[in-house]
Amino acid sequence: MHFEYPIVMLAEIITIGDEILIGQIVDTNSAWMGQQLNQAGIKVHQISSVADEMAHIQKALEQASNRVQLILITGGLGPTKDDITKKALCEYFKVGSRFDEQTFKNIERLFNLRSRDVSLINRQQAEVPENCTVLINKVGTASGMWFEDKGCVFVSMPGVPHEMQYLMINEVLPRLKAKFETPFIMHSTLLTQGVGESFLAELLGDFEDNLPKEFKLAYLPAAGMVRLRLTASGDKVNIQKMMETLVHQLEEIIKDYLFGYDEQQIEEVLGNLLRKLKLSISTAESCTGGYVAHLLTSIAGSSEYYIGSTVTYSYKSKSDILGVPEELIYKHGAVSEEVVRAMAEGVKLKFGTDCAIATSGIAGPGGGTPDKPVGTVWIAISSPIGTFAKKVLLGDNRLRTIQVAATTAINMLRKQLLIENP
Amino acid sequence: MHFEYPIVMLAEIITIGDEILIGQIVDTNSAWMGQQLNQAGIKVHQISSVADEMAHIQKALEQASNRVQLILITGGLGPTKDDITKKALCEYFKVGSRFDEQTFKNIERLFNLRSRDVSLINRQQAEVPENCTVLINKVGTASGMWFEDKGCVFVSMPGVPHEMQYLMINEVLPRLKAKFETPFIMHSTLLTQGVGESFLAELLGDFEDNLPKEFKLAYLPAAGMVRLRLTASGDKVNIQKMMETLVHQLEEIIKDYLFGYDEQQIEEVLGNLLRKLKLSISTAESCTGGYVAHLLTSIAGSSEYYIGSTVTYSYKSKSDILGVPEELIYKHGAVSEEVVRAMAEGVKLKFGTDCAIATSGIAGPGGGTPDKPVGTVWIAISSPIGTFAKKVLLGDNRLRTIQVAATTAINMLRKQLLIENP
Repeated sequence: MHFEYPIVMLAEIITIGDEILIGQIVDTNSAWMGQQLNQAGIKVHQISSVADEMAHIQKALEQASNRVQLILITGGLGPTKDDITKKALCEYFKVGSRFDEQTFKNIERLFNLRSRDVSLINRQQAEVPENCTVLINKVGTASGMWFEDKGCVFVSMPGVPHEMQYLMINEVLPRLKAKFETPFIMHSTLLTQGVGESFLAELLGDFEDNLPKEFKLAYLPAAGMVRLRLTASGDKVNIQKMMETLVHQLEEIIKDYLFGYDEQQIEEVLGNLLRKLKLSISTAESCTGGYVAHLLTSIAGSSEYYIGSTVTYSYKSKSDILGVPEELIYKHGAVSEEVVRAMAEGVKLKFGTDCAIATSGIAGPGGGTPDKPVGTVWIAISSPIGTFAKKVLLGDNRLRTIQVAATTAINMLRKQLLIENP
Repeated sequence: MHFEYPIVMLAEIITIGDEILIGQIVDTNSAWMGQQLNQAGIKVHQISSVADEMAHIQKALEQASNRVQLILITGGLGPTKDDITKKALCEYFKVGSRFDEQTFKNIERLFNLRSRDVSLINRQQAEVPENCTVLINKVGTASGMWFEDKGCVFVSMPGVPHEMQYLMINEVLPRLKAKFETPFIMHSTLLTQGVGESFLAELLGDFEDNLPKEFKLAYLPAAGMVRLRLTASGDKVNIQKMMETLVHQLEEIIKDYLFGYDEQQIEEVLGNLLRKLKLSISTAESCTGGYVAHLLTSIAGSSEYYIGSTVTYSYKSKSDILGVPEELIYKHGAVSEEVVRAMAEGVKLKFGTDCAIATSGIAGPGGGTPDKPVGTVWIAISSPIGTFAKKVLLGDNRLRTIQVAATTAINMLRKQLLIENP
């Protein structure tokens, strides 16, 4: 059975919690839900974050229900939150609450797993608004709740990210797909590294002017990279065909900067390449302080090609651990082409790997000189055929410098491996 | 001169951009602005993210201007964004645009720094709505804009985080403080590690029941930690006095879990302790893959106590680099108390440090066994007087396991150093 809804289904996301408004936590839930809805062909019209206040929550529900057909609510359901969301929903729908046996059994099960008795505070979590369909949350004590009212679906979920994600994947999205006809929306995202937004915009001027009217191009800059997103909506077969052509055109124009697609990460792209070429890697880091190693090892299965790393902050550790000659450090300084090359070659030898990445720079805020200002980073990469180094100037934000230096280094090795293995 | 506004000044934040609604980027700007406004005594009433559409932006401005006295807008001002925000503001205020010389000079200056000529696309950025006061953005080409209309202040800023932050700190906050009387709001946040939200809530039941009516306690869980936030508003002297007493009470109840306050990070707290005790540190990581090193080195000035790290994924590197006896690895497995202790002691010796942290575990998704399921992590810390190890079970989310293992390890060393140096 399908409801009679307009073809383009609109949704809003409402997150509840003072902690978001005062900036104590960043709302990552909304972005995740936005992605999921989008992939399901549902357009997110607005995201609103509101306070832990009954009147404010009700007002937000009322306004959103006048604009869209689906409202996803997160937050305000934890054991210590006084369940403000449930109270607000009861008032909004003008219903009382009931004790939900299924929710209580789930709470009991979770407590039994930890060999503990259900506390009163958690028992109260089994009280739900009378008119809701309970969505059992197997990974937490707060159930999800599904309501239908005047042609609008309301879904309330806890704010803990992995609990919300469990409910979305296992309960909410399957129900939405069964219930609604959704239109075809298509995105393709091309990922670039090592080029600024303005420069890309100039490069893509003609391409943008000639885009078919169903298509839209967006520039999404992030630390060290710019994502280019093509979006279109319409007839599936047509859109897919046009998208393929446009992506090929785009690939050709930006080929010097393109490293991947959609949700890929540069460390994942390099990892796939290393796996394919059966090459191993180690890293020798100074200013990036282990961040390159962290990126590489954040990818599941990285132990197939990643062997190990050193982080060497002191002169002594650079020479003791990596075998960088001390006189080289004293002659050229730790932040120099000579030293970063010796680090890359030293770590490659030490761990017996085919490739290596090395960094040495001044992340700041201290340590800069007129010659080598804060943000100066030397990067070396070593492939099976040689070692290559370059200097980048990354400005005075310590964390950004660490991030951009790491992604630049990973991309340098990726590009070199592609040159060697065309 | 001060405007006639109510004592509690309310603000809303509007972020513009489809990339937020489809979840391609996480909105970190709003959290940052929320923090700044809060510290300035301005209460954020709502945060809304809206699409790159004229009508939608105007509707959001209209609704917000009926609810609050200050509206901060970010996004939709980049060189490639077709400046949708400026068009929407012109329509909203029913004004035309003017060419702003000061903005153009700033654009020219920025291009000269990079030895480039101003492109047409960037020249257009000097067009601004007639009725705005321009706020010059020294770190980017899009100016901030300040409007006053019917008792409401509107500020529009670019969405690039460091540009928005520059404008907030240098232009917006000083103007707001000069213009408005703001009330006294006080927050104190106590940071805990190694204890769950429900358990804390039971521990704090009496404390919460006896809180003065001006005070509110919030539980903010994050990976491996829970933040407890006390908030109050009212007479400054009274609130400060009561806050001091309440914080002392809270400290006493949660002393086993408390590691810091407010915006501190656990790696910063350990760093300060190491600096105070004049102790150095190195790390030997397996499953955390360099993340402990990254956390420690993300703190400015960490080179005073941080010497270096190794990441050793393979058996061979554990024995070659850290001197862990191979027979130990074969007898007990790499994820064992014996091996993680040997790693900590090996890296301490290798880098000649006073302290060390070592981790070895199964981050997943592969590699688990019935005996050692995915999420099993052995952590060892070594202080000047000895080496201590413990096992934790962290579940099947790879990144969360890496994060929680890292913060748990850092806190273990912090607690041990406090025992040794009372």
